[in-house]
Amino acid sequence: MVFTLSSNITEELLNIIQVDDRDQIIENYTLIGKKLNELFPTGSEPKNLYTAANHLLGRGKMLRPLLILLVNQNLGSKNINKIIKLSMAVELLHTASVIHDDIIDEADYRRGLPSIHKKFGNETAIVTGDLLISMAIKITSDLDPLTIRWVSEAAINMSEGESFEIEYKNQDLNTEMYYNIIKKKTASLIESSVASSALLSGVSNKLIDSFRTYGLNVGLGFQIRDDILDIIGKEQTLGKPVGNDIKLGRHNIVHILTKQTYPESRNLPGQKINNYIINNTTRREFY
Amino acid sequence: MVFTLSSNITEELLNIIQVDDRDQIIENYTLIGKKLNELFPTGSEPKNLYTAANHLLGRGKMLRPLLILLVNQNLGSKNINKIIKLSMAVELLHTASVIHDDIIDEADYRRGLPSIHKKFGNETAIVTGDLLISMAIKITSDLDPLTIRWVSEAAINMSEGESFEIEYKNQDLNTEMYYNIIKKKTASLIESSVASSALLSGVSNKLIDSFRTYGLNVGLGFQIRDDILDIIGKEQTLGKPVGNDIKLGRHNIVHILTKQTYPESRNLPGQKINNYIINNTTRREFY
Repeated sequence: MVFTLSSNITEELLNIIQVDDRDQIIENYTLIGKKLNELFPTGSEPKNLYTAANHLLGRGKMLRPLLILLVNQNLGSKNINKIIKLSMAVELLHTASVIHDDIIDEADYRRGLPSIHKKFGNETAIVTGDLLISMAIKITSDLDPLTIRWVSEAAINMSEGESFEIEYKNQDLNTEMYYNIIKKKTASLIESSVASSALLSGVSNKLIDSFRTYGLNVGLGFQIRDDILDIIGKEQTLGKPVGNDIKLGRHNIVHILTKQTYPESRNLPGQKINNYIINNTTRREFY
Repeated sequence: MVFTLSSNITEELLNIIQVDDRDQIIENYTLIGKKLNELFPTGSEPKNLYTAANHLLGRGKMLRPLLILLVNQNLGSKNINKIIKLSMAVELLHTASVIHDDIIDEADYRRGLPSIHKKFGNETAIVTGDLLISMAIKITSDLDPLTIRWVSEAAINMSEGESFEIEYKNQDLNTEMYYNIIKKKTASLIESSVASSALLSGVSNKLIDSFRTYGLNVGLGFQIRDDILDIIGKEQTLGKPVGNDIKLGRHNIVHILTKQTYPESRNLPGQKINNYIINNTTRREFY
């Protein structure tokens, strides 16, 4: 089996986390990618829509499916069919949000490819996001109602987080506002993925809650890592442009903490704050 | 109780269709509108998103909820709580599609008000549509899995129908292509609303299938009526501009049949075909 992990973070995770059966995780992870692409068979009509739907699906890190699989294996590998459906639904929702966010952010690249609105136009990008959400609903339909509720609440949070970002554009944020946004926009779906995986794995409510907290914190950490990479990362590794946050008038946690810690950085406009961070801090401060 | 039906078609329906308990229908119909608005309380954060979410909700004809209620009463008024949830979910999905379609069509007015993208901007309009879909999923979460499946399949059809419209822009359509589009874009959600109402009302599969066929045909008829009104209707009554289809390069059934029946109309460009229809046909030919 050819298996290529599309990002370092996925490999890191598999190496760091205790995995009972690595091959089983890899087999299911690959299966999820394959099943996602089979949802929109090449050549089916409407051709443009189906081509667009497959453009990014199964090409990302698939972090959320990976976490769902890891939690499930950790808890005894029960209900693997439902776990795979949950993974597909969550990845569809995540990809839909990425497609719509890229229109809003006018982002040209995603997952190392032209973004969907760039390649297929804004009109098709809007409809493709909607199609992926609708497919996610269909796939969740025979899962536990509580799972559907948690995942949909995360989707509501994602819309709210995106809306806060639009509202706070070009404004200075404090850490509280920042955490509220990333909790909704990024951490919420990871939190509900992990909690739903625990639920479908048939464990106690107390254990589900512990996994929920774990998922929330993985989500927050993941976004903070993304913020750092947006400033010091390399475009080629990330598959998307760097320095995007400040270009979009978005103060990420690195900007907020830098401005709090170094008064002389407070009034630096736009790209200059990124240069300041790159020139005046060492990598050691971030890691 | 103040009860205003926002469109003639709703009043017509209630007058034409045999209704056992008209007051009960009106009470539930009003309740659905109220509950939809309560989902997004005024003043809640993010303020812009919640204001946009409420801008069109509960202001339309609410044809799908009305049909769901009528079918349910006709079949014995069972499970009214689930019927109200189904109605809310379907109306949320329909409104979300309207919001996204209006961005794509650059439509300035809807339900007698400025469209959401016109009033709140494209960015917020995209996110508002997503929020409404996510809320629809949440509300369906404790309904029958088959209902969730049917409604989500309709949502998939709606995206496909919209995509066909984008693909076929400025192209001559035949009646087969036309019916395929409107079946997906309009009739599918009405069909699944009616079928789901029958399912939740606890009747036999055979009866559900009959109601499904009824819903499909109501949906097709509704779209054909909309096509006719787009040419001969009045803006003030419709709450949206007329002549929109041809402006958007969209051949509706009136254009298709006119071109088939009157050879001299075949090469008329844009608005001229509408003028030809208005000048050379009588209302009698349409009704």
